[in-house]
Amino acid sequence: MTTDKTPNKHPEKETSRIEAFSDGVFAIAITLLILELIQFLHSQTDHGLLKLLFNHWESYLAFVIGFLTILVCWINHHLVFTYINKTDSNLMWVNGFVLLMVTFTPFPTAILAQYFVKEAHLALGIFGINYFLMAVAAYNITAYTYNKFLIDEESRELYYRFKLLYGWGSVYNFIVMFLCFVSVPLSIILYCVMFGAMAYPKETSLILFKRNRKRK
Amino acid sequence: MTTDKTPNKHPEKETSRIEAFSDGVFAIAITLLILELIQFLHSQTDHGLLKLLFNHWESYLAFVIGFLTILVCWINHHLVFTYINKTDSNLMWVNGFVLLMVTFTPFPTAILAQYFVKEAHLALGIFGINYFLMAVAAYNITAYTYNKFLIDEESRELYYRFKLLYGWGSVYNFIVMFLCFVSVPLSIILYCVMFGAMAYPKETSLILFKRNRKRK
Amino acid sequence: MTTDKTPNKHPEKETSRIEAFSDGVFAIAITLLILELIQFLHSQTDHGLLKLLFNHWESYLAFVIGFLTILVCWINHHLVFTYINKTDSNLMWVNGFVLLMVTFTPFPTAILAQYFVKEAHLALGIFGINYFLMAVAAYNITAYTYNKFLIDEESRELYYRFKLLYGWGSVYNFIVMFLCFVSVPLSIILYCVMFGAMAYPKETSLILFKRNRKRK
Amino acid sequence: MTTDKTPNKHPEKETSRIEAFSDGVFAIAITLLILELIQFLHSQTDHGLLKLLFNHWESYLAFVIGFLTILVCWINHHLVFTYINKTDSNLMWVNGFVLLMVTFTPFPTAILAQYFVKEAHLALGIFGINYFLMAVAAYNITAYTYNKFLIDEESRELYYRFKLLYGWGSVYNFIVMFLCFVSVPLSIILYCVMFGAMAYPKETSLILFKRNRKRK
Repeated sequence: MTTDKTPNKHPEKETSRIEAFSDGVFAIAITLLILELIQFLHSQTDHGLLKLLFNHWESYLAFVIGFLTILVCWINHHLVFTYINKTDSNLMWVNGFVLLMVTFTPFPTAILAQYFVKEAHLALGIFGINYFLMAVAAYNITAYTYNKFLIDEESRELYYRFKLLYGWGSVYNFIVMFLCFVSVPLSIILYCVMFGAMAYPKETSLILFKRNRKRK
Repeated sequence: MTTDKTPNKHPEKETSRIEAFSDGVFAIAITLLILELIQFLHSQTDHGLLKLLFNHWESYLAFVIGFLTILVCWINHHLVFTYINKTDSNLMWVNGFVLLMVTFTPFPTAILAQYFVKEAHLALGIFGINYFLMAVAAYNITAYTYNKFLIDEESRELYYRFKLLYGWGSVYNFIVMFLCFVSVPLSIILYCVMFGAMAYPKETSLILFKRNRKRK
Repeated sequence: MTTDKTPNKHPEKETSRIEAFSDGVFAIAITLLILELIQFLHSQTDHGLLKLLFNHWESYLAFVIGFLTILVCWINHHLVFTYINKTDSNLMWVNGFVLLMVTFTPFPTAILAQYFVKEAHLALGIFGINYFLMAVAAYNITAYTYNKFLIDEESRELYYRFKLLYGWGSVYNFIVMFLCFVSVPLSIILYCVMFGAMAYPKETSLILFKRNRKRK
Repeated sequence: MTTDKTPNKHPEKETSRIEAFSDGVFAIAITLLILELIQFLHSQTDHGLLKLLFNHWESYLAFVIGFLTILVCWINHHLVFTYINKTDSNLMWVNGFVLLMVTFTPFPTAILAQYFVKEAHLALGIFGINYFLMAVAAYNITAYTYNKFLIDEESRELYYRFKLLYGWGSVYNFIVMFLCFVSVPLSIILYCVMFGAMAYPKETSLILFKRNRKRK
């Protein structure tokens, strides 16, 4: 029986559909954030537009934070998938976990918008859980594709650094998640540092893990 | 008249547009689920965020169930379309039925979130109808493309197993649909079994229908 | 100056982006319909789920009608773009009018769901306006691409039939639009006939306009 | 270490994913506008459908304005990306700023729908801020890709005109933004002029900046 041995003939087509589906999810999640922002316009008030707009400054902030979070995720997803050139059944699920976290992001963002003033510690902590799980999801996908040799052979060394980046990112986010309940300003600063690092994942991984690699 | 005989010159392009459109529908349906989850944040309460979050545990559960349902559908759709390399006018409608069920999924998911505690039998039964129709839609698409020779010639034997898988899946879901009204725990267990099987459709069809094929 | 003469070097890439963007709009419009359906679940009632579900039968009907409308549009858009292989600046706007009508469709659908029982003539008439404008948009795109030679050279004869189909479709829809205010059942029957014809646009145009072409 | 020198092996694939993601964001933002329009159908009134529809004429206007705004953005984005054939880490962020403005557009559109009658100056002024930032975002992307040589070598001269177009467009929008608070009719006329110019960006840039280029 030959069919058992040659199940997928279009590996390239497969990768492109995972990316297309993922791109769709990223694009929708990032755009849905505006629905939450529009919401407060419907609250009936007599105070006029200007006051209404100024009273909801947390909503704009949450919108921008949610937008940046999903954009950074997309940039990292995009970078990692540049190197993945094979797929298997498990990758669907490993990638599915990333998408679950992306899809979920508007929820902690909405919490942040509504409760940042009233319950800053908890609202930030919930956002922190989301960040931590996202970092874990990113680690999973790099670790899985690295170990299963689903990536471009010639870039294994570089790709290993991505794996390290998301591995240490998970640890970092795990710690900051708890710091949210101790000090709001400190955890915000630490999240800004992480944002800066993850905004340019390739550059960051090259800077951070250069020495590591030399030893090998 | 030559035009009547050569209507479609870009069959490949056509398949890719069906997939792109379908991917879009899957991606949006899976991401819209979060809107339903955000909804309860807008209910005015004085109990604080933590209590609010804990009081809606069914909503998270429904979100995750809805997400997994659509993800499993996408994985199966993706697998089946790996082998389809021709299209015709009817395929648009056969695929359209799949998309109708995918688009509809957020509705039984929302019912599950709101009525699982109050009316578990009915809420689960409605979800069951959705699952049954989805299995029928999946069977339709495999049966149609198999019979009309729209698939990769060399994979017909393997593809026949997918047809069997969704055929038996339809029967299975038809039975469990009624069991929902008899026993909620039993039907949940049976749905979990089905989820496990459909999460890896190729592996499942290879395991289940190996002997069947030998006889031929 | 050579730059003025060679403005677009990747005509194929351009067409694919129009299609990708259009597919996105179609996919989102078709999936957003479910949000309208979910809405009534949030209305607080004590009558139980079953009664709630049966009381909103018009909503399901409207959902299915809206879904079929956009799916038929997509099928026709897809067919027409199979033959288009060049683009120009105007095509963006001609196609943009199609997308405007697609995007607008959830609005008359929502009206249909809420007012079909109370004000059938008006609710159907508004849907009729939408259908008429959609047919005009479809005619525009075929007429423009036909006249500007943006289509596959060898299929001009077949493509001319599509132009005829949407031209006559516009006339047909213009008449039925007014019939909505005279007789609801009659206009529903006439819309069903049109749906049947537009569901398989190529087959319909080949059957209807065969003789026409012979004369030429 | 070779990995540092050959980080991206599939530059074409990368560009296509930025475009796919951007297309998704454009398509969703343009389609979400209808949700805002449907909203008013849910307001309980006894006046009948016809009166309800006529009472919300600003909503239709806002819908069409929002639609045209995003469509014009897409047309310009599409044109510019026809010439971009390389990417780097910064382009993700430069393009991300464009997407932020696109995603944000439904918000000033909703403000326009609700406050154009009551507070025309402010509602239009907020829309003006959006337009100004969008023009800046468009300038950023053309200037960045032009300066970093990420574009098609042979089209640099033409591309330079796009840069000029968005540069002057930013200045124009900056001035009109303030005029909104002085005269509503004047600023509307000026926005119509800009719309006409940006609807056909290539033609506009060729007409406006022909002489400029001659001097060089």
